[in-house]
Amino acid sequence: MSDIRLHSYFRSSTSTRVRAALALKGLTYDYMGWDLRKGDQRSDAFLAINPQGLVPALEIDGLVLNQSIPIIEYLDERFPEPPLLPQDAAGRARVRALAAMIACEIHPLNNLRVLRYLGRAFGADADAQAAWFAHWAQTTLSAMEQILAGDGRTGDFCHGNQPGLADICLYAQMLNNRRFDIDSAQWPTLARIFAACNALPAFAQAAPETQPDAVPA
Amino acid sequence: MSDIRLHSYFRSSTSTRVRAALALKGLTYDYMGWDLRKGDQRSDAFLAINPQGLVPALEIDGLVLNQSIPIIEYLDERFPEPPLLPQDAAGRARVRALAAMIACEIHPLNNLRVLRYLGRAFGADADAQAAWFAHWAQTTLSAMEQILAGDGRTGDFCHGNQPGLADICLYAQMLNNRRFDIDSAQWPTLARIFAACNALPAFAQAAPETQPDAVPA
Repeated sequence: MSDIRLHSYFRSSTSTRVRAALALKGLTYDYMGWDLRKGDQRSDAFLAINPQGLVPALEIDGLVLNQSIPIIEYLDERFPEPPLLPQDAAGRARVRALAAMIACEIHPLNNLRVLRYLGRAFGADADAQAAWFAHWAQTTLSAMEQILAGDGRTGDFCHGNQPGLADICLYAQMLNNRRFDIDSAQWPTLARIFAACNALPAFAQAAPETQPDAVPA
Repeated sequence: MSDIRLHSYFRSSTSTRVRAALALKGLTYDYMGWDLRKGDQRSDAFLAINPQGLVPALEIDGLVLNQSIPIIEYLDERFPEPPLLPQDAAGRARVRALAAMIACEIHPLNNLRVLRYLGRAFGADADAQAAWFAHWAQTTLSAMEQILAGDGRTGDFCHGNQPGLADICLYAQMLNNRRFDIDSAQWPTLARIFAACNALPAFAQAAPETQPDAVPA
């Protein structure tokens, strides 16, 4: 029994982010899976943990934290090594903005509850949902490719040669893209950084298919 | 001529957030308006400033910052008084999560480019777009009401008795809700905090209708 407990769903992109941050920090934790496909996140048991009814939620230090990026910021303040944000304010702003491009411009539009709304309200079939997903992913990732390729601060990872908050968000997004067969060759810098993440054990530990609640695709 | 220049659109909710943060910090700045309805954000002139083609962008300290919450975090680090985040890590996580609830769960779904996509791809008319807007606003704001009402750390504002990052995001969202005639009486705590924001000159300075590029409704 660990002092940290993660409420997660193996396929949840935001849960993947938190799992990667915990793994990069070398933290162990209890894993509690909630099956979003069955609506477990709307159960009384889960709403008592997070009234918003969303994974991830992290129990730590007597707190229940929610929202993936604020959780990762907390982990980075609480366990400073290795840092997930740069030491300078300009660098932090850059990394937070790269993370926000994914967290505020792509993922909110492309998660399960949104795709379901499109089907329910507008009769969007699988093809229309895939086109919607691809549109928002490509709009922002193409801009991100340009930003990263044109900035000398980009290194093996989004910012320098160590993985951090922006890489965590990019990694989770690129995994999501695979589910919709989006070809990442159109973004050489993003593809290179994704490959660098995949080469690290911490990201492999965070991957959906290695979670206790994973089911075969 | 100031050393800070804000690229903005008067009605943009994310621009309103940055304007409120600048005003709360007592900072003066040059205002540059870009008309999103005319597509000015896709002009070469603007894309040279922000390749993502989104307002706001903030020129400061020789940098061009984008994404509203990372911009506000930068301002808070650079100009610490008055603080927009709590002094303790648990409080910071709470305020960042409240801000992220709006910035990651409501606003991305409800901005202009998304509503236009719904119209273009799915034939969503004004009523269907309003229902979409209301659905995402109500889902998250109802959870936020419950979280704020049930936590003793909530004060005159979202966290204690001074306005901060969460209030800034709430203020901009509540303004947006008005455009779709969403009744805020269903959320008494949120309505009370919004009124407290409206009573402060800094928020009035940030309001859409007081911007240089404002046009009558």
